Amino acid sequence: MTSGAATGSNAERELVLTRLIDAPREKVFKAWTEPELLMQWFAPLPFTTPSAKVDLRPGGASLIVMRDPEGNEFPNPGVFLEVVPNKRLVSTDAYTEAWVPSEKPFMTLILTFDDVGGKTRYTARARHWTVADRETHEQMGFHEGWGKATDQLEALVAKL
Amino acid sequence: MTSGAATGSNAERELVLTRLIDAPREKVFKAWTEPELLMQWFAPLPFTTPSAKVDLRPGGASLIVMRDPEGNEFPNPGVFLEVVPNKRLVSTDAYTEAWVPSEKPFMTLILTFDDVGGKTRYTARARHWTVADRETHEQMGFHEGWGKATDQLEALVAKL
Repeated sequence: MTSGAATGSNAERELVLTRLIDAPREKVFKAWTEPELLMQWFAPLPFTTPSAKVDLRPGGASLIVMRDPEGNEFPNPGVFLEVVPNKRLVSTDAYTEAWVPSEKPFMTLILTFDDVGGKTRYTARARHWTVADRETHEQMGFHEGWGKATDQLEALVAKL
Repeated sequence: MTSGAATGSNAERELVLTRLIDAPREKVFKAWTEPELLMQWFAPLPFTTPSAKVDLRPGGASLIVMRDPEGNEFPNPGVFLEVVPNKRLVSTDAYTEAWVPSEKPFMTLILTFDDVGGKTRYTARARHWTVADRETHEQMGFHEGWGKATDQLEALVAKL
């Protein structure tokens, strides 16, 4: 693909986290899509998630707010591109609502929830428009932050 | 919206063409979505449209190729975000397929087909991520080019 060649292949523009979670995928999907659950795990501690809005449909907006220990808030607006219940969720920050372009298209998040004998193979792919943005995201601590958030997700679904 | 304030309001980032077309909206929608029809009107003459591929569903890819009189080809890849038959069509060049980020997210195209007593109020909105991109698009000849293409669209649907 010419655009891939120009800006880097998907692999070069992508950050991936994958984990086998000991819970059925319905629960993991639920933890990603119900605000009251998202607020319990989304931001890696000591950050918290004071609010989450989720309009779960293609074109629906989501707004998850993270708060740091000093009380500064970081809103994460986005729009869903694909919603396949219990299986797949795709969203992007390129829009703040359907179809209002955001300040900067930074990434598209592709989440897959695969059933593995009753457990869930959970994979989160953050696909960026440029290699530079992928590098920035990595330097911002993608692996550590998402790893910690996924620990919290795992602990939450174990209790559901 | 903070992102709107930072990068310009929708109005500042948008180019709009609207026209009342003397044909039912089913025909206008068809001319926009069937490759063999698109090839007959899409590129403003003396440009032509040698090929068009349309996978008409949210997440489906489209690839319309324009050719100039010297034979140079200009591919226009995009992905559909919304498909409401005979009413509304939204696509973007931010992806080349679902969900592969393109080289540069330039615009989102929002087409609406409204019934006005058997005629069609046709509106095409090209919404850009930045004011600068809107200006570039305007300087590339958006109004003249789209105006001419819409003349061709109008002439074609009159014969359907």
